[in-house]
Amino acid sequence: MTVREITDAMIKKTGVPPIPLKDTCDQLMAGSWDMEVKGIAMTFMATVEVIRKAAALGANLIITHEPTWFTGLDQTDWLEGDPVYVEKKKLIDSAGVAIWRFHDHMHFDRQDGIYRGFDRETGWEKYRMPVLFDPAAPAFLKGRFDGCYEIPETTLRELCEYLKVHIGMKTMRIIGDPDMPVSRVGVLPGGGSLGLGVEQMPMELMRRRNLDVILCGDITEWTLPAYVRDASQMGMRKAIIVLGHERSEEPGMKRLGEWMKDLTGDIPLYFTDAEEPFIYL
Amino acid sequence: MTVREITDAMIKKTGVPPIPLKDTCDQLMAGSWDMEVKGIAMTFMATVEVIRKAAALGANLIITHEPTWFTGLDQTDWLEGDPVYVEKKKLIDSAGVAIWRFHDHMHFDRQDGIYRGFDRETGWEKYRMPVLFDPAAPAFLKGRFDGCYEIPETTLRELCEYLKVHIGMKTMRIIGDPDMPVSRVGVLPGGGSLGLGVEQMPMELMRRRNLDVILCGDITEWTLPAYVRDASQMGMRKAIIVLGHERSEEPGMKRLGEWMKDLTGDIPLYFTDAEEPFIYL
Repeated sequence: MTVREITDAMIKKTGVPPIPLKDTCDQLMAGSWDMEVKGIAMTFMATVEVIRKAAALGANLIITHEPTWFTGLDQTDWLEGDPVYVEKKKLIDSAGVAIWRFHDHMHFDRQDGIYRGFDRETGWEKYRMPVLFDPAAPAFLKGRFDGCYEIPETTLRELCEYLKVHIGMKTMRIIGDPDMPVSRVGVLPGGGSLGLGVEQMPMELMRRRNLDVILCGDITEWTLPAYVRDASQMGMRKAIIVLGHERSEEPGMKRLGEWMKDLTGDIPLYFTDAEEPFIYL
Repeated sequence: MTVREITDAMIKKTGVPPIPLKDTCDQLMAGSWDMEVKGIAMTFMATVEVIRKAAALGANLIITHEPTWFTGLDQTDWLEGDPVYVEKKKLIDSAGVAIWRFHDHMHFDRQDGIYRGFDRETGWEKYRMPVLFDPAAPAFLKGRFDGCYEIPETTLRELCEYLKVHIGMKTMRIIGDPDMPVSRVGVLPGGGSLGLGVEQMPMELMRRRNLDVILCGDITEWTLPAYVRDASQMGMRKAIIVLGHERSEEPGMKRLGEWMKDLTGDIPLYFTDAEEPFIYL
């Protein structure tokens, strides 16, 4: 199968009407559409290490969720002559890999492939709150799972320990009382916790669903974190756990192989973990 | 002196032509312009704890750098009936404090009050790189200090230890080799490390100034952190240290009292630290 045949089959399986190339970040970042694919590596981000690992495995198609070139739309005009760009490009060329971004179609899938993988890694699918037909919900959330779970009551600290094991983290960054009870959990992976263009969205979700805690990808401190901190300082049972963008979305890419294996015949499928970006000193 | 007299004097001292109220976030969030001020508390953010501390000190004017109401423009329409909003509002009313936001005028000051305080806390003023008259620099940076320092060579790990003491942190979140040498340091406090509307700005700064490390406030993982990670994985001497929004800007508020004490006569000035928002588990 070629890159084009595989990516077309994936888009078809999402059920999302193909988004015109000019309106999506789901672009071919390297390689060509007619390359014959020998192996596929799935990852949150095609970092230098991921490209090396994919090449060593014999995979010549990398499917990445997030940018290869450091901005939301993977623009490269500003990178002309940049040493990081030049060297990474050389590596990609010498590895002979194609890189395709699978972001918009993956999220717009009614199942949202990122939540699907998150549920499998955490075992939380059975705890999903029923879909809320809230007239106040933003249009793009209407009738869709909104990332809210009701899990058996535990403490914030114990939930962190559970997530360390199931998401693969050593250090958790939180706001809230570690010993507070938690049961109603919102999950806004990746950029979702930034509000998708509406700063108050995560706070409105917390209020609408009476959440105890939201698990976040990227954050800005003056929004949800400030709200939760004030609530906590007034004795209200509110918290956040900052998983970060990579750790919160990688489970979706880890489990992507299961979802697409019926599309790709005998082509080997690999998960190449981009891994926690941060060191804590 | 009244709130109006104090805030007018502060704006005048910045040298920034007063920005019309409709074009700035520097608004009176609580209290009234004609209140007689008995004490002033300076802080990064008027959190619940900061309001309690200010009231206990007898300060009835809080000068905050960042929002009181959880969004960039402190809009409150969406907060109608919100329990966190209602309770915090009650606290503010019962404490009888005015809250004024000093953000835009503070940054637009040719000295930038946030960098001024940062330099005093770190002792780095003498290490500032000379202003660069780069025709490629964004207009708002032309002829201004761009946050770049050349410090005596140390290692990334040792720099973290220095900052822990001088910025007041227990845990540092970094990308890069802890043992790499660092000397050329960029500082993009608060939202500056998000690029001020231009995702690639921090990376262009790193390249233009050949920086070893950038100290960040808020971040989004797919931009500067991804660039630095790739560079580091290719053996280039690049790193980031994520101080966070609060820790990176609080030094500016800690040192604001020194700057304004000639404006306020006998009125007591206090620094009320909003403190590191996060717990690391």
